[in-house]
Amino acid sequence: MTYKLILLRHGESEWNSLNLFTGWVDVDLTEKGVAEAKRGGELLAEQDLLPDKLHTSLLRRAIHTAYLALDNCDRHWIPVERSWRLNERHYGALQGLNKADTLEKYGQTQFMQWRRSYDVPPPLLDEDSKYSQFNDVRYADIPADERPRTECLKDVVARMLPYWESAIKPDLVAGKTVLVAAHGNSLRALVKHLDEISDEDIAALNIPTGIPLYYELDDDFQPLVRGGRYLDPEAAEAGQKAVANQGKK
Amino acid sequence: MTYKLILLRHGESEWNSLNLFTGWVDVDLTEKGVAEAKRGGELLAEQDLLPDKLHTSLLRRAIHTAYLALDNCDRHWIPVERSWRLNERHYGALQGLNKADTLEKYGQTQFMQWRRSYDVPPPLLDEDSKYSQFNDVRYADIPADERPRTECLKDVVARMLPYWESAIKPDLVAGKTVLVAAHGNSLRALVKHLDEISDEDIAALNIPTGIPLYYELDDDFQPLVRGGRYLDPEAAEAGQKAVANQGKK
Repeated sequence: MTYKLILLRHGESEWNSLNLFTGWVDVDLTEKGVAEAKRGGELLAEQDLLPDKLHTSLLRRAIHTAYLALDNCDRHWIPVERSWRLNERHYGALQGLNKADTLEKYGQTQFMQWRRSYDVPPPLLDEDSKYSQFNDVRYADIPADERPRTECLKDVVARMLPYWESAIKPDLVAGKTVLVAAHGNSLRALVKHLDEISDEDIAALNIPTGIPLYYELDDDFQPLVRGGRYLDPEAAEAGQKAVANQGKK
Repeated sequence: MTYKLILLRHGESEWNSLNLFTGWVDVDLTEKGVAEAKRGGELLAEQDLLPDKLHTSLLRRAIHTAYLALDNCDRHWIPVERSWRLNERHYGALQGLNKADTLEKYGQTQFMQWRRSYDVPPPLLDEDSKYSQFNDVRYADIPADERPRTECLKDVVARMLPYWESAIKPDLVAGKTVLVAAHGNSLRALVKHLDEISDEDIAALNIPTGIPLYYELDDDFQPLVRGGRYLDPEAAEAGQKAVANQGKK
């Protein structure tokens, strides 16, 4: 028996399109993002990969993407679980800043360290910042001392894995086709774990928006094909280049 | 301690606007229905009645309404449970028929008996009908002999109440503000139970689309105010008249 796992990064968000660091700021999809999400659902229908169970973050852009994709393959009615553990990486004090301005101000080395180093988080977000989620009721269940004010990818791996183990794996074992609708970095964290990518090599991995990434896993949760399979490989390649080029003006 | 329960009938659907009997046929909202759902969310925000938990049917028009309303009061992230037990009444062989044509063909007495009698269901839907949900995978968990092919309101009460007892009440007891996003008849069934409305009197009760109906319940689940309170009473009154007039050309 193989397990069926589909990863879906949300479509273009309002802040993607403005080239701002977003993190836990809860922006919605753009019209392009809506179209990407619908196309994601079409791909699921065309390739008969119909999810039985949805897991999402607590952020609107992932929830909205999941709704649109599932609605478009007639799976809007499946059970859902949500968790902050699938949220985007918390971008700390960078949240709300323009990526190109940040690159210009701090230079390529610092910029890429914040964006792609495995274990160097951006500066802490001020609790009083308008982009702080410190008092957001949706995070009330996270103990205050665990509530992130910034995160590197290593931190995302650490808080995402318990959810993978306790919530997603049991659904796979139960034979469900599982859709995880989440974010660039929470999905990079999961892919790093699945494909056993090194702390160095993960820097080069980019996940495009809106294109379902399908993994078949053996009963040790090892991918049958390393890296999985994008349901639209050509669009995925173009999308990966676009993500890699973010920050460039 | 009082319990907080909010009922929300989906906004206008494509088949509401065509004046067709819908039942379990899974049509989407119209543009007007989308606007109604968003307005529902505004009312929740304005009156600070923010749900902690959502229960929906398995039908797109209720799921979509809930998504739009919750998104509009920044509660898109709350936990969700869905059940066929909250579905609209199954309209049997009437599904897909025009209400005005049906009224004309069968006369006012038969028409009103099918629409509003407590215990007379419409004729059975043919399993081979294009409007049958007999082989729909979303209903696979319902034993075949319990899967409705038609329902009267009494049948809806009978299949809805177990969900009220086992799924919704525990959330209320846990102190959650609960939103139930469902349908004209599944909500009439619940209101009948809450307000202890007689089998005769329930015929006259109509629930308008898209306007949250708020019940405070005591710890015996008795409403503090019989009939609850619509968050927009004027719009609710106009909406109730519109529902009562369905079928008229």
